[in-house]
Amino acid sequence: MFEVKVTIKLKKGISDPEGFNTLKALHLLGFDKVIEAKTIRIFDLKIDSKDKNNVRDDVEKMCQRLLTNPVIHDYEIEIIGD
Amino acid sequence: MFEVKVTIKLKKGISDPEGFNTLKALHLLGFDKVIEAKTIRIFDLKIDSKDKNNVRDDVEKMCQRLLTNPVIHDYEIEIIGD
Repeated sequence: MFEVKVTIKLKKGISDPEGFNTLKALHLLGFDKVIEAKTIRIFDLKIDSKDKNNVRDDVEKMCQRLLTNPVIHDYEIEIIGD
Repeated sequence: MFEVKVTIKLKKGISDPEGFNTLKALHLLGFDKVIEAKTIRIFDLKIDSKDKNNVRDDVEKMCQRLLTNPVIHDYEIEIIGD
């Protein structure tokens, strides 16, 4: 059994409307020292397998096919457990 | 200047429909070894301040007022830099 964290960020230069609107709302609430707000998403998966290399290959495929949009996202895969 | 990461998870027992639907979609794609999928959200903030304690207090307030819903979310604040 492995726990896998897939961390998904927007690529540099891709606009982050949620982050932008969060920043605007924080300013409206008076938190004007905040100068940047970005959003990051993590998928925390549990995978029933005994082979760490297989898990990495599978998660790489999941990222390409479902979890991320490789055109706009960078992602990192972290495998916990062994 | 501080970088602050606010990590937001759903509380235990609160349903995670996005995680559930991701899990279902992964199974439909044949990734049937995945037995759990949870979503975690991070706000990555940059804050212009010289006082780390002030930053922590401010971010605590931001969490209560905007970034999280304390009824359903647990959150952690990590301050990077000094």
